Amino acid sequence: MSVTAIYPGSFDPPTHGHLDLIRRSSRLFDKLVVAILRNDAKQPLFSMDERRVMLEECTRDIANVEIGYFQGLLVEYAARRGARVLIRGIRAVSDYEYELQMTSMNRHLQPDIETVFLMASEQYSFISSRLVKDVFRLGGDISGLVPPTVEAELKSKITQELPKS
Amino acid sequence: MSVTAIYPGSFDPPTHGHLDLIRRSSRLFDKLVVAILRNDAKQPLFSMDERRVMLEECTRDIANVEIGYFQGLLVEYAARRGARVLIRGIRAVSDYEYELQMTSMNRHLQPDIETVFLMASEQYSFISSRLVKDVFRLGGDISGLVPPTVEAELKSKITQELPKS
Amino acid sequence: MSVTAIYPGSFDPPTHGHLDLIRRSSRLFDKLVVAILRNDAKQPLFSMDERRVMLEECTRDIANVEIGYFQGLLVEYAARRGARVLIRGIRAVSDYEYELQMTSMNRHLQPDIETVFLMASEQYSFISSRLVKDVFRLGGDISGLVPPTVEAELKSKITQELPKS
Amino acid sequence: MSVTAIYPGSFDPPTHGHLDLIRRSSRLFDKLVVAILRNDAKQPLFSMDERRVMLEECTRDIANVEIGYFQGLLVEYAARRGARVLIRGIRAVSDYEYELQMTSMNRHLQPDIETVFLMASEQYSFISSRLVKDVFRLGGDISGLVPPTVEAELKSKITQELPKS
Amino acid sequence: MSVTAIYPGSFDPPTHGHLDLIRRSSRLFDKLVVAILRNDAKQPLFSMDERRVMLEECTRDIANVEIGYFQGLLVEYAARRGARVLIRGIRAVSDYEYELQMTSMNRHLQPDIETVFLMASEQYSFISSRLVKDVFRLGGDISGLVPPTVEAELKSKITQELPKS
Amino acid sequence: MSVTAIYPGSFDPPTHGHLDLIRRSSRLFDKLVVAILRNDAKQPLFSMDERRVMLEECTRDIANVEIGYFQGLLVEYAARRGARVLIRGIRAVSDYEYELQMTSMNRHLQPDIETVFLMASEQYSFISSRLVKDVFRLGGDISGLVPPTVEAELKSKITQELPKS
Repeated sequence: MSVTAIYPGSFDPPTHGHLDLIRRSSRLFDKLVVAILRNDAKQPLFSMDERRVMLEECTRDIANVEIGYFQGLLVEYAARRGARVLIRGIRAVSDYEYELQMTSMNRHLQPDIETVFLMASEQYSFISSRLVKDVFRLGGDISGLVPPTVEAELKSKITQELPKS
Repeated sequence: MSVTAIYPGSFDPPTHGHLDLIRRSSRLFDKLVVAILRNDAKQPLFSMDERRVMLEECTRDIANVEIGYFQGLLVEYAARRGARVLIRGIRAVSDYEYELQMTSMNRHLQPDIETVFLMASEQYSFISSRLVKDVFRLGGDISGLVPPTVEAELKSKITQELPKS
Repeated sequence: MSVTAIYPGSFDPPTHGHLDLIRRSSRLFDKLVVAILRNDAKQPLFSMDERRVMLEECTRDIANVEIGYFQGLLVEYAARRGARVLIRGIRAVSDYEYELQMTSMNRHLQPDIETVFLMASEQYSFISSRLVKDVFRLGGDISGLVPPTVEAELKSKITQELPKS
Repeated sequence: MSVTAIYPGSFDPPTHGHLDLIRRSSRLFDKLVVAILRNDAKQPLFSMDERRVMLEECTRDIANVEIGYFQGLLVEYAARRGARVLIRGIRAVSDYEYELQMTSMNRHLQPDIETVFLMASEQYSFISSRLVKDVFRLGGDISGLVPPTVEAELKSKITQELPKS
Repeated sequence: MSVTAIYPGSFDPPTHGHLDLIRRSSRLFDKLVVAILRNDAKQPLFSMDERRVMLEECTRDIANVEIGYFQGLLVEYAARRGARVLIRGIRAVSDYEYELQMTSMNRHLQPDIETVFLMASEQYSFISSRLVKDVFRLGGDISGLVPPTVEAELKSKITQELPKS
Repeated sequence: MSVTAIYPGSFDPPTHGHLDLIRRSSRLFDKLVVAILRNDAKQPLFSMDERRVMLEECTRDIANVEIGYFQGLLVEYAARRGARVLIRGIRAVSDYEYELQMTSMNRHLQPDIETVFLMASEQYSFISSRLVKDVFRLGGDISGLVPPTVEAELKSKITQELPKS
């Protein structure tokens, strides 16, 4: 049996929480596709390419991980990639509820694709890409929340964003 | 005792989840008013009239159902209509919390009007108007989620919306 | 349309929370049967008869309320009584979850019987029969939690229970 | 990569909910061990052997499923079996919370063993072994909740249990 | 030991829920700083100054309360003020989850500052500044939800906001 | 202002989770009474005295902590001790709900005593006395979950408990 799993997300930017989940999932399935969602409406901080490069750099040492893109329905992307599993991390009850609704809808659309949930590690359970960006913009220290590569990218990106004054 | 109940919502568009609740509520009270919320700030996909027509078509066979409009405070609309009951469907815990907060506020504003909750049927518990629209726009199959009439309306509406390319 | 509703419970003893729900439900349906669950395994403080007498006394002024007993499956009792509605009060999220599970099971067993949920009034949301008994046994003041009749019954019951020392 | 997963439980008796999860998990991992918990304190209805026989009968057509027993710490059993994954089904938020607590504890005890959660199918989300037994004892119809084999076993078991009267 | 606590919020406008929490917190700590968040992105109804004046008027009789402003990271403001405690009110489970995530992040940023939660009083548990404004704009009665001062300010503010017609 | 706080619990036995909360609370209030609940119905593993000794040993370096006993109503004990604050740790949503119900009841019984909640540290959020005892009995490693003193006590206690075989 050879099983491909997909771990979808925005990864804007990738955090230690994401990377922990990628590492743990890669041990369970033959191949893991980390799939970056292209969502033009959301005005991301990092371009698709920048996010792909950061993810590649941080997962370089994991042999069975591949970075991909998708837009449209996740389950159709999964079907095209021959993936049987979607990976979702859960942290809080409210995550969980939204995830169950999406899982039911995905099951309705593609009954053969299974969603499996992994619990966030305790020390990463409060990290989200949005919160990392907010803390960084307000001058807080984000080492320990993202890998050094990502911290450097955030620094150069957000310095550009701000007007010199 | 003759009791009128109100089932309020945006119905943009009506789903099988809504229609299941309408059918079940209509068996419990003498008269059921399905009340479409006019919320100009929300940029709905369907006009008030289009939503009314779809709801009328889908509830044609239920004698004690009537379609209405409201804006402003729901409890005042209910009082004007002589309704003693508000119907709310609940699916998930997060729905439930928001509903409890609204129920407390409505009770504060009009202590004589009672809110009753009905649980969504299992097979419809993951359907929402927003999710139906999202899935449809991304090319997913929504039969089974909305009645055929509504599916046809969505098709013609969303085809107009997209630029020919 | 004439609708009978059933409000089931242990009522060991009835609290202000129960009576609030009985009063509110009695305004929504033509007839309300308050159904005391006979559960021999649970070792109740009050006998079935004592609970019936307390409930009758506290609901004497509500014309369309009747007190009954049941054991076995609630939905079969409801069917025998010609009831179309089960009333359940909800206070907290954990109540709610258990209630949803029971509602799904009851719907599976008797699809024609509908469960409706009413939210506990804010000032009664922390009262349960068990907690009232615990507080009373520990010497706390329970006026405001149960009607005076019930307080008197608790007093005489629990004084008998304790060894004179 | 060859991954063994363990699906632990009491299975007293197995339900359609369990079997749905077994079937779905067996498609994701190379080998699935369904592990029956021996808990002498709990006074089960069915003996370990009876549960094993029912599970074997119901999973006969799934090649990579094996039935096992365990007592003591689940993660140590998993380590002895060379399993890298624990499977847990989740239905409601309260399940979920308890599961997260156990997952943290198991991760503390054996960091290399990963717990993955699968969401119960909507139509089985209200079924539990305990509820099935309760409904059956009260004379309710449980076809649709358990496989025919299990229903037959329940019938013969619970008939023995009751005094002839 | 002299402990300063900070109660942060938008207070746009202050409600009876906020004032209840301020009063209760002021009894627990030597000094309480009510800290108004300056968030230019949020388009508040009341200016920072108007909010400060309303808070001062409503807390005039509490000796150890002081009104302040902050922007940027709350924990850095707390550190600058020599505060050891952050006060947060909780009403519903969803509040609670978000609060736990923020608390973890704040603890990561400043391990010496402790967040303590106080439960909203039952009669105020459904009040939020946003809901008060919505109800007021729709013509509902908000006495009982905010102090008279705030009600008067809302009246003059929202009358200005609306076009004369 | 001199404020005494009470941190009540069974502490059967004390865990790192309890000790973390004691340490953090002792920094917020002038005096902290750790109050061991005497509950004869619960069949504790450790006697009241054993629990007091373990708590004293583990809190020896915190000057403003005192160990006490109570039975009966917690709020009456608090009133007798002149305490204005009850401390409760929260970990999960289900904890939280039960705590809110108890807080409402305590507020009803003694409106002047305030309950404040502190969030469990992430690394201790899955530890409970019951789970520690279960894991220990099943042969799991509990270092990291309780202080060495407590681990030694558990060892000698549970060895006595088991029959030599």
